[in-house]
Amino acid sequence: MKLIRYSHDGETRIGALKENGVVDLAAAGAPWRSIREIAEGGEKALADLKDIVANAEPVLTLDAVKLLPPIERPGKYLAIGMNYAKHLEEADKLGVARSKNQVWFNKQTTCISGPYDEIDPGVTEKLDYEVELVAVIGKPAKGVTEDEAPAHVFGYCVGNDVSARDWQFHSATFTMGKSFDTHGPIGPWIVTADEVPDPHALRLRCWVNGELRQDNNTANMIHNLWAQIAYLSTAFTLESGDLIATGTPEGVGVGREPQVFLQPGDLIRCEVESIGAIENRVATI
Amino acid sequence: MKLIRYSHDGETRIGALKENGVVDLAAAGAPWRSIREIAEGGEKALADLKDIVANAEPVLTLDAVKLLPPIERPGKYLAIGMNYAKHLEEADKLGVARSKNQVWFNKQTTCISGPYDEIDPGVTEKLDYEVELVAVIGKPAKGVTEDEAPAHVFGYCVGNDVSARDWQFHSATFTMGKSFDTHGPIGPWIVTADEVPDPHALRLRCWVNGELRQDNNTANMIHNLWAQIAYLSTAFTLESGDLIATGTPEGVGVGREPQVFLQPGDLIRCEVESIGAIENRVATI
Repeated sequence: MKLIRYSHDGETRIGALKENGVVDLAAAGAPWRSIREIAEGGEKALADLKDIVANAEPVLTLDAVKLLPPIERPGKYLAIGMNYAKHLEEADKLGVARSKNQVWFNKQTTCISGPYDEIDPGVTEKLDYEVELVAVIGKPAKGVTEDEAPAHVFGYCVGNDVSARDWQFHSATFTMGKSFDTHGPIGPWIVTADEVPDPHALRLRCWVNGELRQDNNTANMIHNLWAQIAYLSTAFTLESGDLIATGTPEGVGVGREPQVFLQPGDLIRCEVESIGAIENRVATI
Repeated sequence: MKLIRYSHDGETRIGALKENGVVDLAAAGAPWRSIREIAEGGEKALADLKDIVANAEPVLTLDAVKLLPPIERPGKYLAIGMNYAKHLEEADKLGVARSKNQVWFNKQTTCISGPYDEIDPGVTEKLDYEVELVAVIGKPAKGVTEDEAPAHVFGYCVGNDVSARDWQFHSATFTMGKSFDTHGPIGPWIVTADEVPDPHALRLRCWVNGELRQDNNTANMIHNLWAQIAYLSTAFTLESGDLIATGTPEGVGVGREPQVFLQPGDLIRCEVESIGAIENRVATI
């Protein structure tokens, strides 16, 4: 199932895709008022959802609606750094200290934007892209093992971990450069986990103005998603709707020689196999 | 005005203190259903609040209620590291890289707990305390100057930035060790900003089992709160209810020689002059 949030006639709605049309879940009699509620509802909610969508007719075509971030503002948007070997080498060159542990930072949830929204460069002079597979937490996770972790994933979307490299390296915590407003586009929809048999076998690519910049496979994560969830949930509770960005491969602008950064008007396309693609243009002033 | 959230007869309520009694804001006819709404409401809301409380009678004594975190779950809980000179020297000894910039990290909002709640050590073997003055954002802030910053603070509370030092140093981002569940006690109330003429002239202290461990003054911040808000808001929007922990002074357990960490049963009292005090005991298994 592909789940969306969208704006239509000035209202925010939740929906499901069916034959490329949009089923309005409220109109179809669904009991949930948010995607998060569905994520919280577990297997029962997913089974009910499938029944509802099977018996409903699409009311709109997909291109008639404006897609919004496919999950309501989450409590956390966590992202792992240096999680693909060749991207780790890029980070080495920038002087980022290696860690034997997973390296996690926050994207502030205020940065989250829709799958086709513009990216505002703000004050950065080193705007960069990072394609990532993003997992959405379903059943809350605390102290789960790697074996238990898959049962806590509700679904997946594509994310661009837009980064202000100058501000990112203001300090070793990365905090300032990962969360400029609009620097967290996600989408275009959530593909529920039952339709993604193996999240570690997905090609992920990023193009800038049609030029392929990143091209790798989630099989090459250093710490896979199950290890990520186990590690994070040892420390704190992951809640329904929380987002986990699983890392970006090599090919980012700051890692190129010479370095190249995004400019106003550039169009960035981030695609993950079996999930979808998002496209975001850098705003012109 | 001192604003609280509390639990009474199984319900969560918002209130204001009056002569050490609790005014139930809903019962007093207040239009707001949350502290955040008051924070969003600006000067008008504060003026209305004062009128309402002036004309209301306390319905309960303070000791008859269980105090909750004095603000609903915020979108962000940001904290600055190494913001007092002698604490910076403690960090030097631990090998933390110095930064000419402000060093910010997130406390995950799931870690927030009440002013007298227990601290669960979880898996850490190096549990530590940090008394801090915590600011609560009122009017949203984006791109504000230091001069403009005071107008964006709704009020203040006390925070204990409880830290799992082993997990904190898993990586340079600090993320994993700052947010164990229950490691973010705040309170006991929010003192509205109009009653805190200068947040940079407040003594702050921390005791463990009655022994004074930290004793300094917010006058000694390296980057003061106005600079913090200006810096953060250059990158991203601070929203009503967001929490800003302004740094801890020297005296933390990890900085002592020999190092000393919190143990089950220990009682930590964090106090900020003119604001109040919170007390949290480390849970015994």
